[in-house]
Amino acid sequence: MNITLSQAESVIAAAKKRAAEISTKMDICVVDAGANIVAFARMDGAWIGSVDIAIKKARTAAWFTMGTHELSPLVQPGQPLYHIEHSNGGLITFPGGIVLKHGDEVIGAVGVSGSTVDNDQLVAEAGAEAIR
Amino acid sequence: MNITLSQAESVIAAAKKRAAEISTKMDICVVDAGANIVAFARMDGAWIGSVDIAIKKARTAAWFTMGTHELSPLVQPGQPLYHIEHSNGGLITFPGGIVLKHGDEVIGAVGVSGSTVDNDQLVAEAGAEAIR
Amino acid sequence: MNITLSQAESVIAAAKKRAAEISTKMDICVVDAGANIVAFARMDGAWIGSVDIAIKKARTAAWFTMGTHELSPLVQPGQPLYHIEHSNGGLITFPGGIVLKHGDEVIGAVGVSGSTVDNDQLVAEAGAEAIR
Amino acid sequence: MNITLSQAESVIAAAKKRAAEISTKMDICVVDAGANIVAFARMDGAWIGSVDIAIKKARTAAWFTMGTHELSPLVQPGQPLYHIEHSNGGLITFPGGIVLKHGDEVIGAVGVSGSTVDNDQLVAEAGAEAIR
Repeated sequence: MNITLSQAESVIAAAKKRAAEISTKMDICVVDAGANIVAFARMDGAWIGSVDIAIKKARTAAWFTMGTHELSPLVQPGQPLYHIEHSNGGLITFPGGIVLKHGDEVIGAVGVSGSTVDNDQLVAEAGAEAIR
Repeated sequence: MNITLSQAESVIAAAKKRAAEISTKMDICVVDAGANIVAFARMDGAWIGSVDIAIKKARTAAWFTMGTHELSPLVQPGQPLYHIEHSNGGLITFPGGIVLKHGDEVIGAVGVSGSTVDNDQLVAEAGAEAIR
Repeated sequence: MNITLSQAESVIAAAKKRAAEISTKMDICVVDAGANIVAFARMDGAWIGSVDIAIKKARTAAWFTMGTHELSPLVQPGQPLYHIEHSNGGLITFPGGIVLKHGDEVIGAVGVSGSTVDNDQLVAEAGAEAIR
Repeated sequence: MNITLSQAESVIAAAKKRAAEISTKMDICVVDAGANIVAFARMDGAWIGSVDIAIKKARTAAWFTMGTHELSPLVQPGQPLYHIEHSNGGLITFPGGIVLKHGDEVIGAVGVSGSTVDNDQLVAEAGAEAIR
């Protein structure tokens, strides 16, 4: 089962709302369970460089069915997945990408970039909340 | 001057509406004047392979400030721009990407992919019309 | 608002002058606010490998509207943006890339590579000074 | 022997002058005999998409020590070099890239993009003339 465009739009609307509440400008990407882009929004003034990061956070989360923050400790020097970022045309393994679920099933992922990783994560969670 | 997210969302809404009217499922991308993604929507059931084509059509139109259909005759074998598609990480030079203007100024572009190129072009034009 | 070619040429001239004063040979790149190359100069004898680094430093600064030296501490192992370099086709996150401003607005960025990062930074700053 | 930065700047100045005379806005790239960028200029308002094309024209001419217009007939369907553009990270094989010589020796190449290929070629030739 895959996320619908309508659900993806709800995720983006909720993420945009949360981003505005904390005075940030975000790039927000929603992908389906196959890591293919479903919807995207760049808020006015958000970093151009965050377009690709938001996309890669969402895809990374979808590819491994886990939040990018769960990967962060595993990719450090000496850790098991050190340099996994070289796969799949580039991963992003810091917070801001989380899976979207229907019940227990992963139906997609959202990636957020444009502020601190804490804020990125907060906004991603607000997006995910919209379809929970 | 660059397109705003609000304008980009209007373009996508109008393109989606037109796509539904002609019973097609489209990937729709809006980029700014610098060819950076502002908004994207993949309609339910639209080709996954068209995600990248919609993005590349929009970027191609923004990069050269002309519709991708204007490039089509020029890129044929024996014609002046044969194989220009190898530039910029990949261009798409068939119809479906058109510039978005504010008066005479190009403020972005929309790219549509998911059906025949005639339908793609029709839907792109409907999108552009929304902010004219 | 975007940097003009004339401004970019002033940045490069000033950077070249500073580089010569400290007996270094630099690659110098100026990009616009959208991270697209406006002007470039490789001083005679400067490292060929620094062509791409100068370009990537300038683009990184423009993409995130901050100096590459501001990113350096954040991308270390265990830090929030660890391995952000895998985005956008490759970032450079050590010193030598800084934004160019008109008042408060970022209008472009300059990237310098060819010596120690301290020297690179010095030369980039001399370049930026030229249009301040 | 390789082109110097000073020579490359003369090439670009002459190309800019010719481009202005024929009312065009060009992206102009000079590479050395090793196909590495030496100097670049994007005239105000020139296509962003032509940045990469100017670079690739110059590199293509340097890689094969011949003008890109000499490759054009050879890359057509059924011809010996059909699809050579897939090599070297992307070639451009239509007019606008020409070698720069010192006597009989190739010391670099210039690539021009931003108008019709005829104009591109004209401006490239004016650039090359500057150091002949």
